Formats: sequence, C-alpha cells, structure tokens
Amino acid sequence: MEKKFTYMFKEGYDAFNGNQTEMKNILGGKGAGLADMTHAGMPVPQGFTITTEACTQYYADGREINEAIKEDIFRHMELLEAETGKKFGDDSDPLLVSVRSGARQSMPGMMDTILNLGLNDISVEGLAAKTGNPRFAYDCYRRFVQMFSDVVMMVPKSLFEEEIDKLKEQKGVVNDTDLTADDLKELTSTFKAIYEKNENRPFPQDPKEQLIEAVKAVFRSWDNERANVYRRMNEIPYEWGTAVNVQAMAFGNSGDRSGTGVAFTRNPATGKRELMGEYLINAQGEDVVAGVRTPSPISHLKDQMPEVYDEFVHLSSNLENHYRDMQDMEFTIEDGKLYMLQTRNGKRTAQAALKIACDMVDEGMITEEEAVLRIDPKQLDTLLHPQFDPEALKAAVPLGSGLAASPGSASGRVVFSAEEAAEKVKDKDWKKVVLVRLETSPEDIIGMQVAQGVLTVRGGMTSHAAVVARGMGTCCVSGCGDNNDVSIDYANETFTINGKVFKAGDWISIDGSTGNIYEGSIELSSSNDNPDFKRLMKWADSARRLGVYTNADNPSDLQNAVDMGAEGVGLCRTEHMFFAEDRIMAMREMICSRTVQARKAALAKIEPYQEADFTAMYRIIGVNPLTIRFLDPPLHEFLPSDPEDIKALAGEMNISVEELNKIITNLHEVNPMMGHRGLRLCITYPEIAEMQTTAVIRAAITVSRETGKMITPYIMIPLTSEVREFKFVKDIVVKTADKLISDAGIDMKYHVGTMIEIPRAALTSGDIAKEADFFSFGTNDLTQMTFGFSRDDASKFLGSYYSTRILEQDPFQHLDQTGVGRLVELSCTEGRKANPKLELGICGEHGGDPSSVEFFHRAGLDYVSCSPYRVPIARLAAAQAAIKAPRAMEK
Amino acid sequence: MEKKFTYMFKEGYDAFNGNQTEMKNILGGKGAGLADMTHAGMPVPQGFTITTEACTQYYADGREINEAIKEDIFRHMELLEAETGKKFGDDSDPLLVSVRSGARQSMPGMMDTILNLGLNDISVEGLAAKTGNPRFAYDCYRRFVQMFSDVVMMVPKSLFEEEIDKLKEQKGVVNDTDLTADDLKELTSTFKAIYEKNENRPFPQDPKEQLIEAVKAVFRSWDNERANVYRRMNEIPYEWGTAVNVQAMAFGNSGDRSGTGVAFTRNPATGKRELMGEYLINAQGEDVVAGVRTPSPISHLKDQMPEVYDEFVHLSSNLENHYRDMQDMEFTIEDGKLYMLQTRNGKRTAQAALKIACDMVDEGMITEEEAVLRIDPKQLDTLLHPQFDPEALKAAVPLGSGLAASPGSASGRVVFSAEEAAEKVKDKDWKKVVLVRLETSPEDIIGMQVAQGVLTVRGGMTSHAAVVARGMGTCCVSGCGDNNDVSIDYANETFTINGKVFKAGDWISIDGSTGNIYEGSIELSSSNDNPDFKRLMKWADSARRLGVYTNADNPSDLQNAVDMGAEGVGLCRTEHMFFAEDRIMAMREMICSRTVQARKAALAKIEPYQEADFTAMYRIIGVNPLTIRFLDPPLHEFLPSDPEDIKALAGEMNISVEELNKIITNLHEVNPMMGHRGLRLCITYPEIAEMQTTAVIRAAITVSRETGKMITPYIMIPLTSEVREFKFVKDIVVKTADKLISDAGIDMKYHVGTMIEIPRAALTSGDIAKEADFFSFGTNDLTQMTFGFSRDDASKFLGSYYSTRILEQDPFQHLDQTGVGRLVELSCTEGRKANPKLELGICGEHGGDPSSVEFFHRAGLDYVSCSPYRVPIARLAAAQAAIKAPRAMEK
Repeated sequence: MEKKFTYMFKEGYDAFNGNQTEMKNILGGKGAGLADMTHAGMPVPQGFTITTEACTQYYADGREINEAIKEDIFRHMELLEAETGKKFGDDSDPLLVSVRSGARQSMPGMMDTILNLGLNDISVEGLAAKTGNPRFAYDCYRRFVQMFSDVVMMVPKSLFEEEIDKLKEQKGVVNDTDLTADDLKELTSTFKAIYEKNENRPFPQDPKEQLIEAVKAVFRSWDNERANVYRRMNEIPYEWGTAVNVQAMAFGNSGDRSGTGVAFTRNPATGKRELMGEYLINAQGEDVVAGVRTPSPISHLKDQMPEVYDEFVHLSSNLENHYRDMQDMEFTIEDGKLYMLQTRNGKRTAQAALKIACDMVDEGMITEEEAVLRIDPKQLDTLLHPQFDPEALKAAVPLGSGLAASPGSASGRVVFSAEEAAEKVKDKDWKKVVLVRLETSPEDIIGMQVAQGVLTVRGGMTSHAAVVARGMGTCCVSGCGDNNDVSIDYANETFTINGKVFKAGDWISIDGSTGNIYEGSIELSSSNDNPDFKRLMKWADSARRLGVYTNADNPSDLQNAVDMGAEGVGLCRTEHMFFAEDRIMAMREMICSRTVQARKAALAKIEPYQEADFTAMYRIIGVNPLTIRFLDPPLHEFLPSDPEDIKALAGEMNISVEELNKIITNLHEVNPMMGHRGLRLCITYPEIAEMQTTAVIRAAITVSRETGKMITPYIMIPLTSEVREFKFVKDIVVKTADKLISDAGIDMKYHVGTMIEIPRAALTSGDIAKEADFFSFGTNDLTQMTFGFSRDDASKFLGSYYSTRILEQDPFQHLDQTGVGRLVELSCTEGRKANPKLELGICGEHGGDPSSVEFFHRAGLDYVSCSPYRVPIARLAAAQAAIKAPRAMEK
Repeated sequence: MEKKFTYMFKEGYDAFNGNQTEMKNILGGKGAGLADMTHAGMPVPQGFTITTEACTQYYADGREINEAIKEDIFRHMELLEAETGKKFGDDSDPLLVSVRSGARQSMPGMMDTILNLGLNDISVEGLAAKTGNPRFAYDCYRRFVQMFSDVVMMVPKSLFEEEIDKLKEQKGVVNDTDLTADDLKELTSTFKAIYEKNENRPFPQDPKEQLIEAVKAVFRSWDNERANVYRRMNEIPYEWGTAVNVQAMAFGNSGDRSGTGVAFTRNPATGKRELMGEYLINAQGEDVVAGVRTPSPISHLKDQMPEVYDEFVHLSSNLENHYRDMQDMEFTIEDGKLYMLQTRNGKRTAQAALKIACDMVDEGMITEEEAVLRIDPKQLDTLLHPQFDPEALKAAVPLGSGLAASPGSASGRVVFSAEEAAEKVKDKDWKKVVLVRLETSPEDIIGMQVAQGVLTVRGGMTSHAAVVARGMGTCCVSGCGDNNDVSIDYANETFTINGKVFKAGDWISIDGSTGNIYEGSIELSSSNDNPDFKRLMKWADSARRLGVYTNADNPSDLQNAVDMGAEGVGLCRTEHMFFAEDRIMAMREMICSRTVQARKAALAKIEPYQEADFTAMYRIIGVNPLTIRFLDPPLHEFLPSDPEDIKALAGEMNISVEELNKIITNLHEVNPMMGHRGLRLCITYPEIAEMQTTAVIRAAITVSRETGKMITPYIMIPLTSEVREFKFVKDIVVKTADKLISDAGIDMKYHVGTMIEIPRAALTSGDIAKEADFFSFGTNDLTQMTFGFSRDDASKFLGSYYSTRILEQDPFQHLDQTGVGRLVELSCTEGRKANPKLELGICGEHGGDPSSVEFFHRAGLDYVSCSPYRVPIARLAAAQAAIKAPRAMEK
C-alpha cells in the first residue's frame, strides 16, 4: 500500500484507533490534539495534517517535496474547501489557512508558523468586500506578507518592524490596533516592496505556490539552529521530523468581538488548580506569544464575553479529563464564536509539576507510579536550585517588580544580548550573567541557556521568555515595563528602572518567584522542603531498584547530599582536599621530592589532614559506604606556576629555584590525561598508597570506636588498565590496612575496588573482577578514551559535530550507549561472571543524567553516584527506569 | 601423584620419552641437552636437574625453597655420590659440583653460575693431597669463594679482582696461571676475609648450606635486572622460570693437560660449515666467556691434543645430526679426557642463520618450511641494516682492527659506560653512540641495546660482548687490544688506539664484518642481495597468506620498500610531506586562515605539491594499492615557535605578529592526542578533504594515462570514532572524486576506507563497515587509547611497570593481544559480518613485529603494512604464522 502522507483532522482519530502514541508519532502532538478535539466534537477550525513521515521524505528527497506528496496536499486542500465552503485562492471569498509545525514532542517557539496564507492583491480586496472590513483584510495581508517573508524567504523581521514603528510614530499612535485600513494597506505595499527588493521578484500571488513554500519552510525549520539546540537539550532525536498542520483560519483580528489567547487548565508556575491564561482582543496568536502587547488575564474574559468564557471553561475541563494531564490550549474568538486551535500537555515548573502530580493522585485521576513518571527529572534541578537566602533578602529593597514568570533566584552581571551572555559566561570575571531584553525571541535561546536569569521589559506569563525559561528551569521576571518606569538602550548598553541605571556588567538580582528586581548581588541558599516533593520522592524511592550515592569530597557537600537523600558516597576525590592553602605546600613538597625518604617525610605531613577529613566524613555517613578514591590527577596540577609561589616552595624544600623549576619542567606532560596519574602514581611511588590507606583505616577505626558501630571502608583505585596494576596497589593497601587493623585489635572488614574508566579495564573485566571487590564506572574518562575526545579540547570541534549532526548529544552529558555503553555492559557481564559478589556502580557525571540512569538500570548496576544536587534527580530517574523497565520487557 | 622436582641426567630422557619440547619446558634447554647427551652415551659429567617448576614453586613460596624440594635435592645428591664414587663434603676426596641456570630458551650470560661448590677449609687440603696438586686445589677454592660471594651474597666482584691484580703486580706476573699454590692460598684467605667483612660472618663451610644458597641464587637470578631486560627483548615470559643443573665438576684447571672451551658446529658469524671455537689451557669455563685471557682457536687443539680433538669433532657432528641444527657446545678436558658440559642450538648472525638454513635444506637435513621456521624474523633487521657505503669506505683508512665479532657497521660518538650510552642516545646532539669498553659484562646490556656498535679491548669471538651483540644484531668489534697498541682510561674518559686519542663524544666508526676501526663517521648504505636471503624469502612468500605492504611517505622510501618486497602501500602519511621548507609556509597559512576563502586560497597552493608527490609514488607502485591517509596530526604541530618564523608567517599572511600569536595560542591543546586532529579537521574544514581528494585523483588519472593501466586509488580517513563522522568525510571525497573522474571521462574506481584506531571505532565496526571499503588498524593510537597511555609520557612510569612486572612487554612494540587484540578481533568479526567485501589491514608499528604479525594472521587480516626495512621481517613472520597455524589448529 502507498504510504499516506496527509490526514484530514477528522480522519486522524479513526486512522489510528485513537492510539495516542501512534497518533503523535505520525501526526505530531498538535495534529494528534486537533484530531482528538475534532473527534470529540469540539469547535476546531478544520484542516489537515501533513505527517512527520512526509518531513522525513522531504529530507530524503534532498529537501524537496515530491510530486506525490504535493498532489496529496492539494487533494486535501480540495477536501478542506468542501468542508469550509470556501475556495483556496478565490478572488472574492478566499479560504485562508495557517501553516504550523507540530513535532511528536512540543518544542514551543522553536519552529515556524505562517498565518493568513492564501491572500494576494486581488483576494485581499475580495476579503475586504466580503467582510465589509478592509482594515481587517489588510491587517491579515500585512501579517501574511511579513510572516511569509520572514519564515519562508528569511527576509529579516526587523526590516518590517522598523516600518511599523515608523508608521506608528508618523501617525502618532501607540498600538497596532490604532492603525487604520489605509495605514495597513500602505504598510502592506511597503512590505511587498521590501520583499521584492530582497528577493528580486514580486511577492508570490499564487496561493498554491505560497502553500508549498510554507510547508517546505516548516520542514526546513526542523533543522534550524534553535531547534537543534532545543533538541540537544531535551534529547529529542533528529530523525523524528515534524508534521505540518494546515488549518482554516479563524480570525481573532476581525474586530472588537474577536480575539485570541492561550490558557492552562492549572497554573503552570505553581500547579494550583485554576484556569490560567491570557488573551488579546482584536489580535492574532503571534501577538500574545511574542509579547508585543501585554495581554489581559483570562478571568477578564468572564466579564467581556461571558458565554465564550463559560464554553471555554467547559471545554478545557473536558480536555484535562481526556488527557489526564494539565492542558495548554490556544483559542481564537471570531466575532464572538470560540474556536480551539490547539491543545497539548502543558509545560510547567518543577513546583507545578509536583503539585499537579500529587493533586491528580489525590483526585484519583492517576496512580502513584504514573505520578512518578509525570515529573521530568531534569526539571527537579530548578526546584533544588538555590533561592535567595531569606536572611539576606530581608536587607534587600526591591527596585521594582515584574511578572514572576519562572521561579528561582538569580544574581548576575547585566548583559544585553544572547551573544554577549554566551561570551561573558566564559570570562572568569563575569561567569554569572542576567540577560536583560525588551522581549526575547527564539534566537535568544543560547543566551537564556547560560544566563542565571532573564529579565524582560515586555511580555506576559506566556511570552516566549516565560515559556522557555520555565522549560529550562532558568529564573525569569517578565514584563517589568508594565508597572515601572523602565527604559532600555541597546546602543549604549544601559537599562534604567525607576531611576536606577544599570550598565553592562553591573550586578542585578531577580526573583522569579516574586517578580522582584534588586540592585547588586544577593546571597543564595537552597531549600527542598516542598511537601509535594517529599511525597513524590517517597513514591519514587519505593519504586526504584538502583541505589543512589553521591560524589562528595568534603563534609559540607556530604551533609548536603545526605539531606538530598544520598545513601552513600560513590566517589570521594582525595585530591580536592589538597588545594587548600595550608595543605598545598606539603603536597608540593611530596611531588617534588627526589628521594623516597623526602617523599615519605612530606607524606607524613599530609596524612593527618587526610585522616581528619575522612574522620569528619565518616561521622556524617556512619556505616553507609564511603568510597574513597586514591590520588588521581597528574601531579603537575598541584604545582605552582607563580614565581613567588615557586620561590616559597624552593625555600621550604631547601633547594634552588633553578632546581625546582627543573623538577617542574620534568613533570610536564604532552597528554596529561593519558600520562602519569591515577594508580600509576602508586606504582612509581607506593608510599602514596601506604599513606592514603593509613589515613582511611585510622579514620574508620576512630569513628567506629566513637559510635560503637563498625565501619567497612571502601578504597577505590583509579585508572586501572591491567589486573596486575590493580593487584600491585591492592597488595600495598591490604598489607598496610591489615597491620593497622590488627594493631588496633578490632575486627574490621574493608573493600578494595577500582574505577573502570580505561577501555582496556572494561575489556579485561573478567580478570580484574577476580581481584576487585567492586567496580565503579568512571564514565567521564571512559568517554574520553573510547571516543578519543579530550574534554578540554573537544570544544574546538564539537560545534561542527552538532551542526553536521554527527553527534546529536554531548557524550559527556548523556552516556553514549552504543560505544561507551557497550563497554559498560561487557564489563558488567564479564565482571559479574568472574565474581558474582562484585558490586557495580557509576560515579561519572552521567550518574545524575536521567537517560543515562535508565541505561545503568538496564545494565544491572547496583548504584549510581552523582553530585549532591543531582541526588533527587537520580532517585527519580532510577524510579522511572524501574517502572518503565517491565513494560519495555513486555514488548 | 607428588610432583617430581628433580631428575638425574640419566633419568631425564626416559621421563619424557625424548619429547624435546616437554624436556625443555621442565628441565630447561641445558638440562634437556645434558639428558640427551647422557642418553646417547656421550662423556658427560653426571649430575641432576632441579626443574623449572621448582623455580616457580620457589617464587610461590615467597622466595624460599621448601623442605620437600630440599629433601629431593639432597636425595639426588646422594645418587650423584653413588654415581661418582665421591662424597659431597668429604674431607679427603670431596665431590665438587657446578650449579648453573638453564631456562627453556637460552639466555646466555643473563643468569648466574657457581663452580667448584662443595669445598671448605678442610676438604681443600684433602683435594690438594688427593690430586697432589695444591695449586689446583686452591685455584678451585679461590674461584669458588669469589663466585659464591659475588653470585650468592652479592659482594661486589671488583673487590676480588682488585686483589688479584694487586697480587699479580706484587708477584710481577701477567697471567693468573703464573700464580703459585701459595699465592692462591693467600688469595683465598684474602677473599674469605672480604666475605666475612661484608657479610659479618665467616665463609660457610657446610657444603649443603652452600648448595641450597647457590640454588636459591640461581632461582633469584631469573628475576635480576639484566634477565628482565633480555626477556623483554626476546618476548620470554617471566612465568617460565629457570631450571638449575647441579653437575659433578670436570676440572679444566688441573694442569697443562687440562683446559676448557666452547665451539660451534658451524661458523656462527658466517654460517660456513666448519667447526669453530676457542679454548684455554689450564682454565675454567668462565675464563673463556669473560674474556680474561684471549683463547686459542679450536683448530690448534688438533696439534695440541689430537685424540681429544678427533673425539670432539666426532661428538659435535653427532650432536648436530641429532638436533638437526647448528650446536653451541661447552667442553672441558681434564687430564687429557674430554667431557661435554653442554650443548644447545647456537645463536648466530642473520647471515649465518640464512646460510645454515639453506645449506641444511641442500644437505637434505631439513625441509624448506623448516628452514623458514629456523630464521628469527627479528634478526633479519641486522641483515638489512646499513653497512658502510663501499665508496665512502674506499677513502677511509683503518686505525687498526679487532675481531669481527658481530656484523654490520656503525658510526657514533664514543661513550665509556652503559649508563652514559643510555643517557646520551636521548640527547638530540648525540643520539648515535659507540660503546667502548675494556670488556663487557651482563650489566652492560642496557647500553649495548641502544648503541650503534660495541668495541672491546679484550675478549674473543665468544666473549660476552660478542655473543650478546650478535643476538641483538648490534655491530661489534672485540679484542682490539690483542693486535694494536691500545689503552683505555675510564677516569679521564679517553681511548687510545695506535696513537690516536678519542675523548668521550668523538666520532668513531667500526665494521663488525671486517673488524676494522676508523676515525670519524662514515656514510652507510644498505644491501640485501644475499642469495640465501633471496632463496629463503621465496620459500617464505609461497608459504604466507598475509599480504605485506609498506608504510611510505615519499618516493624514495617507497622504492626502498618495493625493493624489499612490499606489495603495496598500507599507509602514506600526507602530512609528512609538509615539513619541507618550501611547503610549510603554505601549510601554516592554511592553518591560520580565519576565513574559508583564505583557507581555500592556501589549500590551492598546497594541492600541486601533494599531486606531484602522489604522481611520483603512483609511478613506482603502479596499479598496486597505494593507501593515502588524509591529514592526521593536530594542526599546531605545523606552526612556528621561533619568533623569526612567526614574523615571516605574519608577513606572508598580512597580519600582525600579535594577531598571529593569538591564533597560535588558540590552537594550543591540553591533550593534543585526543584533540582537534584526524578526520575532525575535515569536519571543521571540509575544504581540506576536497583538496586532498583532488590531489589523489588527479595524480591517479595522470599516471593511469601515462601507463595505460587504470589505477584504483585508496583513500584512508583517520581517527573515525562514529560512522556518521566517516560518512560525512566520505561524502565529500565521493562528490569531489566523482566530478573529477567524470570530467576526465575515464572509468576509474576508488576505495574509501578508514583507520580503526579509536576504541569506539572498533566497538562500532559493524556500523562503520557498511560505509567503508576497508579498515586499517592504527594500532599505535589504538594502544594509546585502549590503555590510556600517552606514548609521549608513558616513559615516566613504564620503567616501574617493567620492574614490578605489571607489564613484561612494551605494548607499543608488541601488540597487547588481551586488550587491544580483543578490539581488533571484535572489529574484524563484526566488520566482515556487516560487509563481506571489507578489506582488513594494519598499519601501526606492530605490522613489522613478528609476534604481532602472527596474531594478525590468526585474526584473519588481509595484509600488514610496516616500514620499508621491516618488510622482509613481516614477510617471514607471516610465513611462519601460516606454517604454524595449521599445527596450532591440530591441537
């Protein structure tokens, strides 16, 4: 059978028997929603969906729509004509359509939309005559020319906006709605002239040509820069493609009985069960989203158009019940009649997600397991992220406030463009920036991603800035110009609010939970005593099989992690303890020692520090596992480069500066990542392993005696590539530990294991497992070596890798399951076979990445270990993996 | 059954049914030979062998000989007493024994030997009385005290030698043999005093204690520094262990009708069929080997002791026939009676090995396949290594000459110690050294390994220096003091020969084939027109299945390789062509270009150079494969560091020095090995791939037209880690190549393949093989990434790895079959499965390493590629692998 590339909305539901997954895969989320709503008899302007498979075909055909698909589109346009009783391209009563993208998973604002398509110089007059509303007709036409030029032909949007501003100034009006029919007609001519000047040909008058070009533009937009960035952030595969929805226009701009808006069935910021939304009278959809005018809250509609409001409330409640999830809906009112343009599961803040999930369990709408699956683990990050310290906040007086568009708090230096934001965060004097914009647009996504927070002058709770910031978990205050005396001067890089002038680089603080704006920087603190969070994490903990440990190098991080629910420490890096000023000197002496005696003397100075650190950590973690990794980095990382420091060290060591410089030079390495580091240090200097074992065992003995509960130390050897390497160091550990334990006259057990972070270690896991008590996958280094990518240098080419789509994801962020994952699986299987008691964990940064956690669950690991703030994320991801896994096995 | 740890010589043959392999494995080579000779009824002083398994047990027991083995030894000593009719430790007629090492494979001079064991203060007098020869008795005793002290107790040998020299001076005699009985008695007392001073106890008088200590010392010597170095060079596993032979002494030092010597059944330097050897009258074995006196050629024995000579000729002929190989024999004459102390397959030069193998085929002694197996491929190196250029030699006048102890020629700077040699070869101003020594000892092996040649003042053709140098293929001239006026002054680092004084660092040249010594350096040239070599290589070529290609970057190397028998080019590195002065500037411009236009302009300058190089290479290799690898190294390797060069480049590029320095700094990488290199360069700068494809295809078209034979280019993409990377670059290659070929209007095919040198590439070979025409394993990089060892930095710790025996072999020299090999096998299997036409080769340095070649044969590769001089080695190794493989499969 021929593949069907186009479905009328009313065909959609039946074609897939209402199967939501199949519908979304083929029709996209928006297409599926439209099919659903049509099937349910809701007031939906009719139309058709060009499938995601047509998009894939478009790319396979070298970015062309083939004849068969074109014919299919035109045939469905004829069906739509029959449906609406209007003719596409008719001179006197033209059928106008919107052309919108709609991928499987919603990517708000990432792809392109064209409204009012089908107009030309003749039919605009027909529309004016038919509706008796030339202002409306030309408003549609000027919008269409602008959107078509921008989206399809990529003529810069600013050229058109400047003309609107010029005209408004000339006419002395503030709002677009104050422009007359003649003004708009004049504007349309100007717009067409801009088009012609840029494209060297007149604006296309053939509606079929307009349609095919628009569909191509939407397909093409799947591959634009911002969509690629968004997909990378959200792990959406490129191969999915986007569907295109062609829908008869309902006109929100046809007068004061018309309007358009967006609304949520529950509050997307707080999760409260209340209809929440905004609308604009006499406007089209993009006006609301783009934040051109600040819209009215949906509650005002109750007074303005009570019947419409009631109908909308009724429909939205039906939709939420149908999808059993909070809905994000677009609607248009045309001459007092309500049309539903779209419904989808709404994006929400972490707080809202938690509250909605818990409420829906209480309402009996979903199960606890479903509730666990409803939370995007990545989003928890925002919840756990610092807020302004309540004490510090007491002293701060707000300069003004805007809308609390995305929760969390941020302090940073003011930047005025996304590019600047992206650049300045790399500057170590800046790092933290707050992006201040009149309004944001999809091009700004790169800047929003790196900024601590976003502050906009215009736009509401559903403006681009607000939606995107909430999705990212970035704090955002929007529309601060509405209630304050605000001006922004991009050219001179200044932002003024109620008389206070900020220059680029000045510190500003914003609170996305209150909308307040402050001068200077304010101290942050974290809080996670949200009761919904606690409830949901309890459900998660009872569902998961994986243990969740933390990576912590000091007592304060460890306490933090334990508060976040960490069940043990998967990685305590002993080297991080040595950068403190009072310790680094002893470390440097050790490194520069030229004799074993001198090295032992320096190590003897270091041992008490290590022992004290470990003692403090054991006091917190008690008998739960504390996995202490021996010294790992290349030694030269500890050495001074500043001449003053070198002089001081030489003095301490009683050698000449010249001699010390020679030692430092000798320690230089060409590829330090693959150099003299990890357990290689213990092989050349076994006394390091002796000292570190001594510190660990002594600390464990001290705390075991204090508490009367016997600790079992976990000693982890880094960078093994060969079992004999590991055995050599293990022998030193065992000899040292056994003596200390026997001298102490106690019965202490201990485990000696290794990192698996070198490909050869994974490949020879069967041998290593015979000697090791546990494996911990160091997926950072394992990714480096498996790909041959130096993390420090890969930025030189990874950009090209993303743009050419050689890589869709950063393998350092999301585990490469094909290559690195194969080594992990092989190591698990062969390690367990050789040693059934072998404990398996992972302590690379992937331990806190949800999709990687799911992989580790499937691979059969015992635990994941991640940074303290990621512990709850890992707990939730582990629960989701456990809930999903049996389903996956049913397949 | 209890394991048997000791065998009398006369038990040995029957215990293993004469199975040579088993005998060698358990009894060691020397023990097996003694058992064989005893079984054949030859005159062998009887004794017993303590097995290699006893050695393994010794190490397993923590370097102790357990009671069961000790009892076994004493029981066999009793059997030996019965055999000889003498009592071990008897006061009046003591049984004296030698205690010698004997591993599976002979390791000449690497381990320890003790002679005359069993003497003490009382029995020495008994021996003197019994033999009526007190001089002899005390000669035995002083030798024993010295050897026992040196070998067993590690009292420095020099302490004893100084005393001998002092005594000789005092007595006014030249040779040891001129010392009287009283002199030797006095010397023995002095030696015992030295022992006592060093050990704080008297010299042990109990023969049983002496015996056990000596056996332990031999076992321990298996693990000494020089044995470890030797094993690493010869790929002998540590786990084999050594056997110990305890043998009744035959006394070559009992007067003028006594003597000792070593001989070969054929000439070990030339292979000529002639008995060749040396002997000393009134001496013990170590005198010959250590080069203390220069011995007489064996032919003199014919006159001196005709009957003994005839018997020896007869026995040696029998031994050669028995073993069907050239024998290296030790013998002793005691009062006119001949004793055979040892026989083994003799070490020989490459020339000799070839001649002997060919001669034995002609003599009907061995088959052609056996002949192929007889040659150690590694040894061919010496054959193919440069000799003095005949023209250059004509102008050189020798300063003098010594013995032509190991063939080949060498020019280098004079060094006087092994340590200095090892150090100076790392100095780029030195690099080439010639080690000049009075005589060499096993401690010097590290220096001999790195020197171009070895020159000794004392010692014959079978001295330590000669034997070891031949084994290594290092050129050696020995005993130059015999015919020349020579002095050597270690303290002032000068060497004088016939009036010419050489200081450390002066250039000297030696010819190991003629024995001549020259001042200054002499040009070298290579020759491989040895007819035996050609014959044997023909047999090898018809036995092998693997193709043998070469790595060659320029026409001259390629011609050389073709002359050596290369069948194609497995690796032509395009970057090496760019370090020439006239080209580097264009390359640098390309690298520092800031725009695509500028880069294309620079590449346009480079293209003609590349095209010309490829054209020249195609003219040599014709239609045989020429595999051209695209640009591989990190770009900064090409950049200038010298300020003058930077200034020149900035001028050429029309930018400021400051700006250029900024570009250079930006190109710096933390771990360049895993940085922006290989195909990553073609992904960021696709125009590089376009240019290189153009150069390859144009060159192939030119030469195809010239010759009328259509060339099939092989284009190789380096550093793939992901199939999409490869596909991206391949698409550029295909697009560019197809256009050129179609424009030329010819029908040319071409292949695009990739290096497999990143672990992930091996792990995803199934995917990559679907796109690639061939794989070439880059085992250098693959070893780096699989181990996480940076080749540039690993020297910092590899020393410790060898000394702790974590690694026995350098994985960059011999393929790590366990880890890296597993990736290679996996890649072969999965690659072939996905693409049955996939061609598989290897172009890392392992391609010329015999044991690695054997692995690649088993893994099913199509070819190996190696440097030109290694081509014959690879051909031979490939043949041996093919001959051995079916046998291995019969197991």
